[in-house]
Amino acid sequence: MTKLRVLVWGENVHEHTNPAVHAHYPEGMHHTIAGGIREALPDAMVSTATLQEPDHGLTDERLKATDVLTWWGHKAHGEVSDAVVERVRQRVLEGMGLIVLHSAHYSKVFKALMGTTCSLKWREATDKERLWNILPSHPISQGIGEYFEIPAEEMYGEPFGIPTPDELIFISWFTGGEVFRSGATWRRGHGRVFYFRPGHETYPTYHHAQVKRVIANAVTWARPTVSIPDSCPNAAALEPLPSRLTS
Amino acid sequence: MTKLRVLVWGENVHEHTNPAVHAHYPEGMHHTIAGGIREALPDAMVSTATLQEPDHGLTDERLKATDVLTWWGHKAHGEVSDAVVERVRQRVLEGMGLIVLHSAHYSKVFKALMGTTCSLKWREATDKERLWNILPSHPISQGIGEYFEIPAEEMYGEPFGIPTPDELIFISWFTGGEVFRSGATWRRGHGRVFYFRPGHETYPTYHHAQVKRVIANAVTWARPTVSIPDSCPNAAALEPLPSRLTS
Amino acid sequence: MTKLRVLVWGENVHEHTNPAVHAHYPEGMHHTIAGGIREALPDAMVSTATLQEPDHGLTDERLKATDVLTWWGHKAHGEVSDAVVERVRQRVLEGMGLIVLHSAHYSKVFKALMGTTCSLKWREATDKERLWNILPSHPISQGIGEYFEIPAEEMYGEPFGIPTPDELIFISWFTGGEVFRSGATWRRGHGRVFYFRPGHETYPTYHHAQVKRVIANAVTWARPTVSIPDSCPNAAALEPLPSRLTS
Amino acid sequence: MTKLRVLVWGENVHEHTNPAVHAHYPEGMHHTIAGGIREALPDAMVSTATLQEPDHGLTDERLKATDVLTWWGHKAHGEVSDAVVERVRQRVLEGMGLIVLHSAHYSKVFKALMGTTCSLKWREATDKERLWNILPSHPISQGIGEYFEIPAEEMYGEPFGIPTPDELIFISWFTGGEVFRSGATWRRGHGRVFYFRPGHETYPTYHHAQVKRVIANAVTWARPTVSIPDSCPNAAALEPLPSRLTS
Repeated sequence: MTKLRVLVWGENVHEHTNPAVHAHYPEGMHHTIAGGIREALPDAMVSTATLQEPDHGLTDERLKATDVLTWWGHKAHGEVSDAVVERVRQRVLEGMGLIVLHSAHYSKVFKALMGTTCSLKWREATDKERLWNILPSHPISQGIGEYFEIPAEEMYGEPFGIPTPDELIFISWFTGGEVFRSGATWRRGHGRVFYFRPGHETYPTYHHAQVKRVIANAVTWARPTVSIPDSCPNAAALEPLPSRLTS
Repeated sequence: MTKLRVLVWGENVHEHTNPAVHAHYPEGMHHTIAGGIREALPDAMVSTATLQEPDHGLTDERLKATDVLTWWGHKAHGEVSDAVVERVRQRVLEGMGLIVLHSAHYSKVFKALMGTTCSLKWREATDKERLWNILPSHPISQGIGEYFEIPAEEMYGEPFGIPTPDELIFISWFTGGEVFRSGATWRRGHGRVFYFRPGHETYPTYHHAQVKRVIANAVTWARPTVSIPDSCPNAAALEPLPSRLTS
Repeated sequence: MTKLRVLVWGENVHEHTNPAVHAHYPEGMHHTIAGGIREALPDAMVSTATLQEPDHGLTDERLKATDVLTWWGHKAHGEVSDAVVERVRQRVLEGMGLIVLHSAHYSKVFKALMGTTCSLKWREATDKERLWNILPSHPISQGIGEYFEIPAEEMYGEPFGIPTPDELIFISWFTGGEVFRSGATWRRGHGRVFYFRPGHETYPTYHHAQVKRVIANAVTWARPTVSIPDSCPNAAALEPLPSRLTS
Repeated sequence: MTKLRVLVWGENVHEHTNPAVHAHYPEGMHHTIAGGIREALPDAMVSTATLQEPDHGLTDERLKATDVLTWWGHKAHGEVSDAVVERVRQRVLEGMGLIVLHSAHYSKVFKALMGTTCSLKWREATDKERLWNILPSHPISQGIGEYFEIPAEEMYGEPFGIPTPDELIFISWFTGGEVFRSGATWRRGHGRVFYFRPGHETYPTYHHAQVKRVIANAVTWARPTVSIPDSCPNAAALEPLPSRLTS
């Protein structure tokens, strides 16, 4: 099997403006996320790209050479160009995997693939999050156990404005009384999409062992099986047709 | 219960340029579709709108006063303004029902709600179509029987580039050897979407008794239960939180 | 529309052996549940049946005259006869609605329709339950609001051994740290099944306004659209077949 | 990775009573099916078992040592013991994969896992079957192309009495005018189930290259990820509970 090519995309803004974020992620969140994947999948080819690069680092060539893309963004969703969003969406529909992280629920890419609001409740406070593994046979939840806890995280609460997931893997419990569908999958075209809730920038979440494990599992799971460009062909009949219309 | 307010939207182009279409639909396809709904649902308030009207007849006020919108378009998808598309999409997410007819699989509205290519195979020839009712308990297939036939229709074939439907109601058999998921539903936000395959402009399909029945059933089924505007609120905790973060 | 015929089935054991249960439900849990439905749906014909009656009150005639059956059982699942279970299962597959309450997750009827373990975690302690409404447009969650609370209930926790629901309506939060898919629907044959979690016998849950509302909504939603007996017919061809096999 | 252990179960009756079946499958259908899997998956350990063996060859030990079970039966479904059916069902719920072939739609095992009638239309005549691949990114449809044809097969037609599949992979077109959901998957507990339509005993279907490919793909896809026995535990709270109930 050829090596899995993973591209970790980061908005890369908070790290430079908020000292608390910088403290957790001095090299940028994308580097921490990429490091976690490299650690779990030493055979994978893992690279990074950011908003600030030309084409946000997501040229046609780069995307064609990507099997699975992970996406984290928060405050600069609006700065992502519509052309790049459409390019990413089309690559997913052709077969590329996409892992959507935390506040990227509001990214243009995720919203374009879901078609819905992707809205939710939120609170930055002192909640603990406990993620229950409700699909322990799924490749994404291997090695996770019945549940895992994140001592401090932003709260996201239902209702979450998404289409019904094809598979619901994690449901979160929060101290403050809310629940959330925290890990969910959808096929979109020939590609696979996984949304994973944890990862607010002011917490060290992407250093958490089980968060890293889930992301690495998801990257493996989302590996493309095919790459099929879009077409809407005029198709000849496979069986004899009557010579003229029945009236 | 208040009266169901149905708005039948038509592209209204072929009727004026193709004599074969004009022959079947001298008043326009939208009028025939609207007439079928009125016949089946005499208590409903059924009106029409077309591409050529200001805002394509789909102002905010008009959409707010609409419970269920039906959409037929084909050659002029590109002429529908993006602002109107976004307005319609938001109304569906708030709760309005949407019935997507035939070549409107490629309408901007349907593609925006699905997030996928919505592509398919097609052929204009001499196929017969037989629609099998695979969900006879569904409100949309009431009164339809095990199957029904359309003596002549354009062929649409799989693969159809849609997300997995929430409910698959009809599968079509075509003389030329193809099959197609011809009737399917999706929830999108608080609204319900039904795609129904038949209805190529050069055939008298919207005069067909069972096609009219399915559309009227679908309009009834798609009636809104709620109207909830989008929001992404900061939510106070419902349970006591610790005064400071656990480290 | 003819009157909706609802049959409320109760195991009717705890009420006679446990004073705490008797205190909440002096006439039996089934009478309280039936009373809640009558209050919300004054036009419905609501009757009751219990384990102790001949055929547990579920003869062929009775089931044929039932549109929607609600089922509560706990300690006497094993005393329900297999013949009655099969009779109920077949009526659901023909079109009858079934509302499965709380500990009936382990009833023979629910297990036979699901095919899975239907197991879960549980705890009788001092938990509060908060049910989040994640599908506010569903007929079953009308009038419920964003969430509702039950001050004291038995805890049920994930993983819940069910097939993926067709629709997930409620997710519960418990004080002790668990979550649960508390309201879920499945089509089975031509019938509709709703599982609703609350209702441990030692709490006054079936007197709770929103619990009563959900059950009444579910009964209305589960109303049959058809009644189709099982068959596996030899079917003549609808199109010409070749006179002999292609080799 | 350890070797995949596949067990091919065959009813093994028609082969001994019908010369036409014997001619296609002189060693028994199960040996032909097993041979096709061995050919595609040379590293797998593939064995067979039949109805006539003690416990039908499906003892606890044998099933515990099985990763994926394939099942073909037709005229002797009623001779399969209920104890063995329950044993197989439990192993699937624990994680074992199950591939259900053709007339095994009516096997006790499949019906127990689905909970529904599993009925369908059928015809033994001169139909051609064309299976359309509607999910080309699925592991089961790799290498299959847009469709494949079986020159002569028994017809199975809709409606098919199954729960909505988690994934619908193939839809069949038949000469005589019917369609059928011919390849579909369901999770049941921790196990994966695939139903595959082709394979009437009087045709050489299990010698067909693409049929063999689909079965081998399915066997690989259904490999267990976990083996989790059923339990319904009393669970201690993970968070502090109030000392007494709120009234």
